Amino acid sequence: MKTIRTSIIGFGAIGQGVAEVLLLKKEYLRSLGLEVRVVAVADSKGATFNPNGVDLAKCLVRKRETGTVALEKLSGLELIKRLDHELVIETTPTNIETGGVGLQNMRAAFETGKDVVTSNKGPLTLKYGELQEAAKAAGSKFRFEASVGGAMPIINLVNEVLAGNEVKGIKGILNGTCNYILSRMLEEKASYKDILAESMELGIAETDPSYDVEGIDTACKLVILANALFGLDATYNDVEVTGITKITPDALEMAQENGYVIKLIGEVSRKGLQVAPRLVPIKHPLAVGGTLNVASVDTELAGEITVTGKGAGPIETASAILSDLISIYREC
Amino acid sequence: MKTIRTSIIGFGAIGQGVAEVLLLKKEYLRSLGLEVRVVAVADSKGATFNPNGVDLAKCLVRKRETGTVALEKLSGLELIKRLDHELVIETTPTNIETGGVGLQNMRAAFETGKDVVTSNKGPLTLKYGELQEAAKAAGSKFRFEASVGGAMPIINLVNEVLAGNEVKGIKGILNGTCNYILSRMLEEKASYKDILAESMELGIAETDPSYDVEGIDTACKLVILANALFGLDATYNDVEVTGITKITPDALEMAQENGYVIKLIGEVSRKGLQVAPRLVPIKHPLAVGGTLNVASVDTELAGEITVTGKGAGPIETASAILSDLISIYREC
Repeated sequence: MKTIRTSIIGFGAIGQGVAEVLLLKKEYLRSLGLEVRVVAVADSKGATFNPNGVDLAKCLVRKRETGTVALEKLSGLELIKRLDHELVIETTPTNIETGGVGLQNMRAAFETGKDVVTSNKGPLTLKYGELQEAAKAAGSKFRFEASVGGAMPIINLVNEVLAGNEVKGIKGILNGTCNYILSRMLEEKASYKDILAESMELGIAETDPSYDVEGIDTACKLVILANALFGLDATYNDVEVTGITKITPDALEMAQENGYVIKLIGEVSRKGLQVAPRLVPIKHPLAVGGTLNVASVDTELAGEITVTGKGAGPIETASAILSDLISIYREC
Repeated sequence: MKTIRTSIIGFGAIGQGVAEVLLLKKEYLRSLGLEVRVVAVADSKGATFNPNGVDLAKCLVRKRETGTVALEKLSGLELIKRLDHELVIETTPTNIETGGVGLQNMRAAFETGKDVVTSNKGPLTLKYGELQEAAKAAGSKFRFEASVGGAMPIINLVNEVLAGNEVKGIKGILNGTCNYILSRMLEEKASYKDILAESMELGIAETDPSYDVEGIDTACKLVILANALFGLDATYNDVEVTGITKITPDALEMAQENGYVIKLIGEVSRKGLQVAPRLVPIKHPLAVGGTLNVASVDTELAGEITVTGKGAGPIETASAILSDLISIYREC
């Protein structure tokens, strides 16, 4: 049995999802020879830690009842630096302006020789090259499947399963909110404004939806895909971005009459990185509805391979984090 | 550099595709630390071998010009038994009645401690449990991504990328010919008979199309998926099978008016293994057209994940064989 001591830094929806999944999958992980011992959990108010393992069930209850997991006035960053452990699961909120506390956490993890698994887009969008260098210099593993498309396993699909296939291009629907809005506008022949209001009521769109509908979220995920799959060091500024706010029901209907749907597509190709509404043939694997995410990889030998999955949700995202963890530590 | 001595047993379209892909990817394989040395190539008429490596380019030319790669009156089976090598790439024609020569080849490979990568459905459909036991007893690796859905990487997606996710069920379109016929019948409002004739002219359907249109091919692939992903030891006889020969253009049109398409779906669930025409919502990721293959995996944590790709083609299938080879021998 291999013991992996890990911290969970960030204990919002995703961090709590990770805790739940680790509790749920304890026996399964043991069957793979892995004992995952969570030695620290931190949120923005403080932390709890125990070198022999914290009680995750109690952490979840305390968070729910008091709004924080904290028992000590310690930051995640301090724990990463001072506490002996192998893996940092970084799930603090995304900040794409500065990288936020997540960037500091990842730097500190690599400085102290730890591995990192994360769902946090900000640091990857701003400082991908620097972080990969730091991981390499430290001999650390760095995995971030959960940062793009939640449960849709695009990065590991290409890197692990399609080994031997040169990737020529990628395009995808990487934002579930935009996909939902465009799908509903067509179904209801309703305006962007009306469906946006509906989406906000349902909690599918945020109170400030601009991050989604202006294409910013899609662009961040596209940057991560481009860096991970083409070995680039692109940042958000390298992406040409158009959102969905100007799409009309008429445009959607006219497209449909001609056998197309309009989708917000992020694309990496020789022309660079672009996010824009595009016509997609209605029978193409990219033409999925609802809040689904989807990505098509154009490969040299295998042609186009497409993968579709739920783009969000704490348990779905936590499952991607778990897969990364297993793929790092499982014996080959 | 790790040298992998391999044989290619079966030198039809797929075997030749493997040879082409190995030539094309020589440098890439070296960059992964792998030197793949083909020491024997066999077809039904004989073989050629050289412990220092055969010339693959010459093999391809000889096959094209003379109809066989043979320089010696030796069978693949004899070479597997007598010639020192690590890997057998088994690409002989599928025989789902007896397992054919492929079954003997795989047994011999494991008896002599070799690894096997194959695209051959027959042996896997008939003797999955026995072959897995034999591989295990020999400490051999046994991979067969190419046997289901050509370039659509469903088996490795589940086993490698979705590790940690319990699979609850699988359904998919596993036969490109049936998908093509049903897609075209709807587009042209034409009868099954007319579109079948078109498909035969285009070479999409075989001269004897019953293996495809009766659902037999789908059932074989479903058996392999069920065995590989649920650890079953099912055979073809465990599948309830209905083909597409009774579908009418009216049925397809009526389905479409209600937001559905009719597809030949293979499904593994608690109810067992079934192949039958089913209604699929038009916006569901399974609703892909043309000759594409697609499979949806229903997972415990990540929800439904769908992967789509080209189901056939020598280079596409060979690329799946190459991915299996790399995943066996690449250093972790």
